[in-house]
Formats: sequence, structure tokens, C-alpha cells
Amino acid sequence: MDDQFDRVDADPPMRWNGWGDPAKAKELPLAVRALLPLLLGRVRRPEPAVPIDAVRLAAPALTADDLAALRLAVGDAHVDGSQEARLRHAGGRSTPDLLRRRAAEQLAPDAVVRPGSHEEVLACLRLASERGLAVIPFGGGTSVVGALDPERGTHRAVVSLDLRRLSGLLALDELSGEAVLAAGTTGPEAEALLAAHGFELGHYPQSFRYATIGGFAAARSSGQNSAGYGRFDAMVTGLRVATPTGELELGRSPGSAAGPDLVRVFLGSEGIFGIITEVRLRVHRTPSERVFEAWTFPDFASGAEGLRHVAQRGGGPTVIRLSDEAETAVSLAQLGKIGKVLAKGASAVTVYEGDDLEHRRARTAELLRAAGGSSSGAGAASDWLEGRFDGPYLRDALLDAGVFCETLETATTWARLPALREAVERTLRDGLAAAGAKSYVMCHVSHVYPTGASLYFTVLAGIRDEPLAVWDRVKAAVNDAILAAGGTISHHHAVGRDHAPWLPDEIGDTGIRILRAIKRELDPNAVLNPGAVIQPGPEPSRAG
Amino acid sequence: MDDQFDRVDADPPMRWNGWGDPAKAKELPLAVRALLPLLLGRVRRPEPAVPIDAVRLAAPALTADDLAALRLAVGDAHVDGSQEARLRHAGGRSTPDLLRRRAAEQLAPDAVVRPGSHEEVLACLRLASERGLAVIPFGGGTSVVGALDPERGTHRAVVSLDLRRLSGLLALDELSGEAVLAAGTTGPEAEALLAAHGFELGHYPQSFRYATIGGFAAARSSGQNSAGYGRFDAMVTGLRVATPTGELELGRSPGSAAGPDLVRVFLGSEGIFGIITEVRLRVHRTPSERVFEAWTFPDFASGAEGLRHVAQRGGGPTVIRLSDEAETAVSLAQLGKIGKVLAKGASAVTVYEGDDLEHRRARTAELLRAAGGSSSGAGAASDWLEGRFDGPYLRDALLDAGVFCETLETATTWARLPALREAVERTLRDGLAAAGAKSYVMCHVSHVYPTGASLYFTVLAGIRDEPLAVWDRVKAAVNDAILAAGGTISHHHAVGRDHAPWLPDEIGDTGIRILRAIKRELDPNAVLNPGAVIQPGPEPSRAG
Repeated sequence: MDDQFDRVDADPPMRWNGWGDPAKAKELPLAVRALLPLLLGRVRRPEPAVPIDAVRLAAPALTADDLAALRLAVGDAHVDGSQEARLRHAGGRSTPDLLRRRAAEQLAPDAVVRPGSHEEVLACLRLASERGLAVIPFGGGTSVVGALDPERGTHRAVVSLDLRRLSGLLALDELSGEAVLAAGTTGPEAEALLAAHGFELGHYPQSFRYATIGGFAAARSSGQNSAGYGRFDAMVTGLRVATPTGELELGRSPGSAAGPDLVRVFLGSEGIFGIITEVRLRVHRTPSERVFEAWTFPDFASGAEGLRHVAQRGGGPTVIRLSDEAETAVSLAQLGKIGKVLAKGASAVTVYEGDDLEHRRARTAELLRAAGGSSSGAGAASDWLEGRFDGPYLRDALLDAGVFCETLETATTWARLPALREAVERTLRDGLAAAGAKSYVMCHVSHVYPTGASLYFTVLAGIRDEPLAVWDRVKAAVNDAILAAGGTISHHHAVGRDHAPWLPDEIGDTGIRILRAIKRELDPNAVLNPGAVIQPGPEPSRAG
Repeated sequence: MDDQFDRVDADPPMRWNGWGDPAKAKELPLAVRALLPLLLGRVRRPEPAVPIDAVRLAAPALTADDLAALRLAVGDAHVDGSQEARLRHAGGRSTPDLLRRRAAEQLAPDAVVRPGSHEEVLACLRLASERGLAVIPFGGGTSVVGALDPERGTHRAVVSLDLRRLSGLLALDELSGEAVLAAGTTGPEAEALLAAHGFELGHYPQSFRYATIGGFAAARSSGQNSAGYGRFDAMVTGLRVATPTGELELGRSPGSAAGPDLVRVFLGSEGIFGIITEVRLRVHRTPSERVFEAWTFPDFASGAEGLRHVAQRGGGPTVIRLSDEAETAVSLAQLGKIGKVLAKGASAVTVYEGDDLEHRRARTAELLRAAGGSSSGAGAASDWLEGRFDGPYLRDALLDAGVFCETLETATTWARLPALREAVERTLRDGLAAAGAKSYVMCHVSHVYPTGASLYFTVLAGIRDEPLAVWDRVKAAVNDAILAAGGTISHHHAVGRDHAPWLPDEIGDTGIRILRAIKRELDPNAVLNPGAVIQPGPEPSRAG
């Protein structure tokens, strides 16, 4: 690996009805095609996908006057009502999103509007608020929780506000290690801009190739290097935000006691309070060395114990992740190699970047060995790195083969982790079995903290009929199970519309009232991302 | 130091009109008494302090009906309208607070109410909201920003809600390293409770001996070990909160993307939205080893450069702090030894706790040496540790001698730090000189981050007349200077009433509107801590 530091080039526009670069589409490996019928029984191939120009869309609901006003705000070239633009902004990239993209009749925003500056975002929001147009903020288009559904709420039309023209490195303070990036800058663009100055952000979620800096912030993303550099929340030191009723410039200091940290009100707000236009971020010098080491544990439980000790001791790896027995067996973690059966047990990957590598590796190795792990060398860990952004391509191939494939995730304390994992897996299997579908469930831990960790599940299922309806029921039961077991409804995928009905269980009625109060103040006409995060419906009543 | 791990016993109740345990009152060392006239000129000894029972207070404004209702809520024994109780809850421990405690006529809350449970706090808040009684939440009474002023706002009476009966370790999850502490537990109580199980919180601000866990959370405290264990914000994993209109239980997971992190809405809220009754915290195994090393730098600038490299590299000390030349000279950092002139230049202290001590010390030493530092051994660093909670005792002795002594603090990025320091020092000196007062200004860095650091100033001044009025003007000019230089209005002292007029400059009108919207929702009758954080006055207008 010569060019080891993630100089991932910006990809061409994403497939309108699948993941990523059409040229990178994957075929299912032969071994997987052989394995699937054994795991899932016979599945039915779906109807072929509908070509983009054959999809039936409702006529755009914007008036000529709306369009003229939007064009005045952002320029004629940046208001696009074409079928292609509308369908490219019709949703995110969850499996239900992709299944909906196969239908003959679809929903889409009435137009796509591309502001080119903070001021143009402000103008668009004022205009939308005055005219009663719903606004769906759009970054990389990679949401997997329904945050991009073209939901108009109570309004007469809905526009997708595509933020990718807000792109670039606006400031770099090399002494303080702080960069300001425009919110529509994609992951690869951000890293290339920083690399030119010898800096790195080091945020690599699976959506990295397409997702934007503003999207990472708005959805509280967490990347594969979170053990070393923290989740995206922890990297953000300031924000610039445009709302329908005013703007904010937050974050003067790495630590402050100047009231509640309002940056945190916007991290995770998913565009319901305002639009993040600039993000101030902690960055570090591009690491010059990297060490890989893979591990094998007798089982998931002993591996998790090892990860716990590593997280609680600190000073360990930049990446640490553990696959359970099922994921290890089919090696779905190294998605390019599905079907290559590795060692039995549970496999883990560690990567060390920066300085002091051998010391950190030795400290970590000591703890992992004590938990029952044995080193399996560098190869499997560097393989993981090579294939780490490719998972969604494989999902497209599975969906084309009629195999339902989806992921979901949660997190909790170390003490509650085993019961949470068991509850989710049981609910997935039982729910799919009740619909007559065989399933195969895999799990990994990819984000660790001193007090707990995330759990990330991948489910394959042979759902014969109405996969959307079946998954809706199963996912609802899983969400109930997560909350009952003390997990969070999302560790890094966010709330969107899909998880919104469960948020009141997580933060309580009083928590929902706080979100609604902020929303009423900043977006009194409720034009921003209707139905995301906060479900429509009556205000929870005040106690007391 | 045998009992090196901070088993600081709980002190007896604080002096009503000064700091701490009356038995620990300090005399000014002879060397200081000799030095002060040289630095500050002749000062005038103040009038002797008024005895507590000679202070004139307004008659309590609570009706018999109010008192009966409060007694019903918390029990007869826990509603106290005595002169002593009222004066012990009449304010915090800023220098202006202490000067006001010397007056013949004083302001105080109308009664002190001590709820014994979360439910009793809820009952008190409902009752206060119905009856229109202002409520000042009271923990350890150590605020230095006017957060405890008995301000009744638009209400007819004001009660101090003393939370220290909410005390104890409510849960400890040893596997996850998470403890739940009742909000009124003091620093020493918390550490003693955790130590019995082999755990430590490791939060040691100067207020440690008196301040409470809930106060640390509400005011976004930062302790002396922040380089190792983080500021208090970073330790909090969950909260239980009582508000006049409902309650919250927040924090299921160490990482989450389930909407904005509402824990952060209450950290720094200083009791204006609700009362924190329980705090869930990350704790760690009690460290078994500790290494000290003091350093000397040619000047503050080179020392700051060394600290920056240490913070940006990571994996360094648990404590790191740097005194400027003025503070080094009078050794006020080691307050027990004021007047003992140390080496010239700027002195720094490093302390390492936990494991891997020698490796961390060597890594740090390498960077500090490269920045021009030379090690001065362990002695000065362990001396600092011994005297680290004693500063406020010395201030009482200075005030008794007629010397004005106050501290203030801010933080910013590394790049802006030198100009911020210069602006604050110049404004202090010029402002005091304009009032005819000589002054001596010292500064240290005690909290470092990869992107910036805090600055903590101690000012001694020979103010002859009306020290309160003089300081008011000087402090206002300093606050303006801080904001103009890109600093935060407070790094860890919080906003209270003293900094509230400057918060709109820091977070903008839209930021203030967010705080007001949350306040209106949770505390619609505005009974909670009137005038703290948010200044009274008309609502900022909406743009757009």
C-alpha cells in the first residue's frame, strides 16, 4: 500500500437508483452465489429496475412565481426542475430507499435548488418560509434513515436544497490545527484540500466518498478511525448556520463555560432548525506511518472484553473493530471477499496511525492477548482497509439477486452490550421468520468508548413478497427491542424520518418539547425538513 | 506524600463571609506583607467585617401560606428562614460577593429550602411556578460569577434551593466505568464514595472541597486534571433533570446520533431551565502511581509553545500548567508559598497519573525541552499539588489587609492566545491605573486542548475607594477586550449574572433566542434563577 493515506478520489455522481459509481458495480462472488441458497433458501429475482426517464412523477407543484423567486436568489442555472435532478434528490440510500427507486411511480421534490453561498442559503430559507415551501437539505445524498424523503409536510411544494456548491477550504490555522470547511465539501474533497497543507481530518465513515462535511455534522456521523480521532461531534469546534429567522456563528474556544454549547444543538439537528453552511474542525498533521494487526478471538464475548480493556486504558489504536462469529465466517467485514471463510471465532482489526506506533501496538496487543486473542498478522487488517468503502456496492448486487440486505446500528454501555446484541438479533430473526423469510444476521463493534461501544448489524434475508412492508414491521420491532434493552436508537446513522417515532422513548416528552421549542423559534413556519427527527402530531403536554 | 490520591476530607461549613473552613484561615506570609507595598503602594485597611447577626436584612417576603406549602413539599425541618441560613445563601465567592458580605445592609433569599429527593425538587419547582416564587439553585455556594445572587426577577419572593441533601453514589457500573451521583454530593464526598470501590472521578477544580457534582455540570467546570481526564463536560454521560413543567432522564449511550445531545443543553444552563438532580459520569480505576516534574522556560511564550506541542501530540500528562513570569516570580501558583521567589522565567508543572507513566513523561519531556524548557525536578510540582486548593484562603487574608484580589479566565485558539493575553493584561492595568490603583497581574495556562488553551489571570490591586465600583468598570472593559480578541467570556467560571451582558456578543442574537425559547418552554413563569445567563430585557428580534 504505497498511497496508504486514503487519497480517495472524488467519485463521479452516484447512481440514481443504487450506490456509487456505476463503473464500480460489483458482481456477487461465485462463493457467495453458492452460499446464499443454503443460508436463505430460494429467493425470487426482482423485476428489472425502471429506467430514470420511464419513472412517473407528479407534475412539479411550484408556481412560475416561486421559480422566478428561487432563480433570483441563486441564479437561473441553479434551479433545476428536470426529471433527472428531481429523481437524483428523491431520497437517500437505505435499502427501502433503493427498493422504492425500482417502482414505476415515485415521489420526488418539485425542484432542486443549489445555493452558492451562506447568503444564498439565507435567502432561500427566507423565501421558502414566506412562500410556505418545504425545504429538504441535501448533502451527499447518503442518508439511510429517510432524512431525504421529499416530504412537504403541510406545505404546497417541496424543494431539495443541494448544498454541494458550498465547497472548499475556507481557512486553515496551522498553528492551532483548525480548519474551516464549507458544508458541501465532500469527504474526498476535504481530505485533498487539507493534504495540500500537510493536514488530515481523518473522518472515514462508509459514506465517505460522497457524504459532505455539513452532513457529517448535521447527522452526528462517526468514522472508522473514531478510536483515534473521535466521532465527528468531537472534531467540530465551531459552526456557521443559516436559519429562516437569523444566523449563527458559534465556537470561539476549544473549551468554554459560556452557557450551554449551542454547537451541540445543531449537531444532530438534521436540518430541522437551520442549515449548517460552514464547519470549523480540529485537524491533525497527516500521519506518516501506519501499522496494521488483525486478531482472532475464540468468540465475540472475549473479543468484546478485549476491546473494552483497550478503550478503558486509552492510548491505543486509531481503528479497532471486532466482527462476531457470523460476520467473521462470511467475512462480510472485508466485503470484497465475501465467502472466503477465515478462521473460526471472531476476528478483529487494529490500525495505528500517527506516532508512537510500536508502543501503542504493544500496549494494545498485551490487552487483546490477555482477553484470549491471538494475532493473525497485518494482512487481514490491510485487506479490510482496502475494501472498507465497498460494502454498499455489494448490497446493490444482492438486491439485484433478490436478496434483502440492510444494516442497522445502536450503542450502549459495556455492561448492557451483550443483552442488547442478543435482543436485536433475536428480534431480527424472529421477525423475518414470522414473515416466512430465512435470514442471516451478522454483527460488529466498530466504535468504542471507555464506557461502552456501538453494535452494527448486517442482515441478509430471503423475503419473498412485499419486502418493504415486511422490513417495516421487523425494523419497528427491532427499534422497540433496542430501546427496551437500553440502547440508543442510533449511534451514527441518525434519526431521519425512519427513527423519529422512537425518539420520544429515548429523550422523553420533555426532550421532544425542547426540540419543538427550538424549531418553533428558528423555523416558525416549519419549512425545514418536515417530519425529520420530530414526528408530526400534537405537542406533548406539559407536566406539573 | 503517602496519601497522595486526594483523599481530601469534607470540610466543615464554609465561612459565611469568606472562603472555607475558618480554622484553616491563612495569615499573609511575611515576605508577601513586605512585597505588597512595593507592588501596590500604600493600601487602606478596610472596616472590620460585620458579625452575622448584626447584618440588616429585609423581612422575609414569603407568606405563611407559601411557607406551609414549602414545608409540605420538603418537610418542616427543611425550610429555614433564619438570618444565618439566609446569609449563608446570599451569594457566591467572587471578590465582589465577599466585599458585599462586609456591608451592614445586605440582600438575601427569603428562605432556604432543602429538598431531599428528585421528586421533592419537582414538587418545589411546580409550587414555585404556581406561586410565582423565584428559585436560586444552590450547590456548594462557590460561584464566582454572581449565579447565586438572591435575584427575584419579577416575582414577589425568592428562595434558595439548597441541593446538598441530594447526596450519594446512586449506582456504580464497574464494568462500564460509569457512576451515578446525586447532584448535591460534594467533590470530597464523591471521591470518598468512589474510592471505596476502587474508582475515581478525578475532577479537581479549586472549588473541589465545597462544590457539588450538580454544580460542576450546571456550570461546565474544568478541573486541574483536565489534560488527563477532560473537563467536566467530557465526563458526563447522562443527567436526570427536574423542571417546572416536566422531567428528563438523558444519556443511554456513550455515543449517539439520536438527535442533538440534550445533555449539552443542561450542561452550562446554570439552573435556568431546570435543576440537575442526578449525574451519570465516566469514572476510572483509582490510579496507583503518580509522577511529578516541574519545568522552567525562558519565558511564557516558549512555555506556551511547549504546552501546545504536548496537547497536539496527545498521550501526555494528567496535569499540565504554565505560569507566566509575573506568577512565577511571586509563586502565587503555589499559593502556600507566596513570596518565595523561584527561578526567573516561566515555570510549569506536570503530573502523570495512571499507567505508562515513564513513557508519557519522556514523550512530554522531549517536547518541553525542544521548546526551551529545562526540568527542575519533582519538588516544585508536588508542592503545587499540596497547596492547590488553598488560593481562596489567601485571598481572604489579602482582602483583610485591604488588597483587592480577584481572578478571571478565558480561552481561545493557540494562534489567538498571545494577543488575547496581552489585551486582557493591558486592559486590567490601564483600567486600574485610571482609577488611581497600582496593580500586579499574573497569568497561567491550566487547561490545554489540541486547538487552544485557557488563560487564567490573578490581579492584585491597591484600590483606595469604592473597590466594587472600580472593579465593575475594569471587569466590563476586560470582558469587552476578551470578546474583541476572540476569547470566550468564560472557560470554566460560567456566565452567572456577571457575564450575562456579554453572552449575546459571544453567541449572537439567534443564540440568545434559542436559550430563551428553551426557557419559555420549560420554565414558562421564569422562576428559575432570574437574570442568570440570559439578561432580562426585550426578546431579540427575528431577522429574515
